[in-house]
Amino acid sequence: MTPATPPPESAPLRSDAERNRGRIIAAARTVFEREGLGASMASVAREAGVGIATVFRHFRIKEDLVAAVFADRMDAYVDAVNEALDAADPWEGFSGFIEAICAMQAADRGFADVLTMTFPTAQAMEERRSEAYQGFLRLIARAKDDGRLRADFTSQDLVVLLVANAGVVNFAADAAPDTWRRFVALMIQAFQAPAHGPLPDPPKDDALYEAMLRTSAAGLTTPPRGT
Amino acid sequence: MTPATPPPESAPLRSDAERNRGRIIAAARTVFEREGLGASMASVAREAGVGIATVFRHFRIKEDLVAAVFADRMDAYVDAVNEALDAADPWEGFSGFIEAICAMQAADRGFADVLTMTFPTAQAMEERRSEAYQGFLRLIARAKDDGRLRADFTSQDLVVLLVANAGVVNFAADAAPDTWRRFVALMIQAFQAPAHGPLPDPPKDDALYEAMLRTSAAGLTTPPRGT
Repeated sequence: MTPATPPPESAPLRSDAERNRGRIIAAARTVFEREGLGASMASVAREAGVGIATVFRHFRIKEDLVAAVFADRMDAYVDAVNEALDAADPWEGFSGFIEAICAMQAADRGFADVLTMTFPTAQAMEERRSEAYQGFLRLIARAKDDGRLRADFTSQDLVVLLVANAGVVNFAADAAPDTWRRFVALMIQAFQAPAHGPLPDPPKDDALYEAMLRTSAAGLTTPPRGT
Repeated sequence: MTPATPPPESAPLRSDAERNRGRIIAAARTVFEREGLGASMASVAREAGVGIATVFRHFRIKEDLVAAVFADRMDAYVDAVNEALDAADPWEGFSGFIEAICAMQAADRGFADVLTMTFPTAQAMEERRSEAYQGFLRLIARAKDDGRLRADFTSQDLVVLLVANAGVVNFAADAAPDTWRRFVALMIQAFQAPAHGPLPDPPKDDALYEAMLRTSAAGLTTPPRGT
């Protein structure tokens, strides 16, 4: 199990490997955009012009490929939280963050779905998600302290909003691409204090996590939708 | 093309045909519940214990079978509007109707999806949908006149809510089945006057119709999700 010392001729090989890796990620981005996350590794290999064994050598399971494709989106997600925490007005920070990530969902339907999933084996991705989550908890606390966010808002409400907005984005995508804007504006107004009344309890975190796991499993294995 | 006079021995045949029709509808209900609307006519035939030719003799296209399976739900949908119109309090009528149909979505994921689709060839079904729509327009007018519904609410907002709630219901189904209740309560509070602010414009009716058509086409042809 000890890694062998690389022989001197491995340098060009390694750079070939890196080129292939980049090509596979770019191909996967295209294929996921066209066919959804249910696209097969074989489709990705075809698009990249490499053999399927090469794809599997770089990405043992599809979760790893998904994580690589959406790594920059996850970075942007964390950046959006941090920017929102820098906003002088806590409510502007909170509501601006919600708008920003819903806009990211609208701009990339694959990412819209990824935000409603969880990939326990894709550690780097889940660390980013957890980082964003911690920041979001601070955003919530600030906006509540300021009295503009309803006191019974919970982090689960964001998960549910992202799920609902993924549905809206996937539904309206080409025919009415701005539909999400009004929907998200309504949700933000619903979150704003003073509230019109009490709410039923939010789902428990572990139940939501279970739902995200099931969504991932279904999303990665379902053959792509016809267009 | 003139229909032949039925021979006397056709009476038992006709009642056989009716039995088969009922059996196919019941089988389709089971299969759609288990596999979604993407289930094949062959699956339905297997479940019903009849040949696939028999299925196609009764239901020329899958739209017709979907319409037959959900006919009673569409009736309940129209009933819900009419009951809401009878409510003494216009806002209770309006918000009670929204809750009732979202509850119908939660109780039947197939129907949750059907409400975000349109089936131009299934005339009886579309007539029911149009009947419900006309009643809903009256519900809106009453609740606005009463000052409890925000003045900029439009019928398109209901379509978008049904799409979003179908997403929530499909996501949370088994793991957190009550998630829709809080989500729908938030939406109803967002609809309630006084509004916290203005909203972006709603999607145009023809764009929403186009999105519903595409959703139907995708939903009826996509192979079922794994479970």
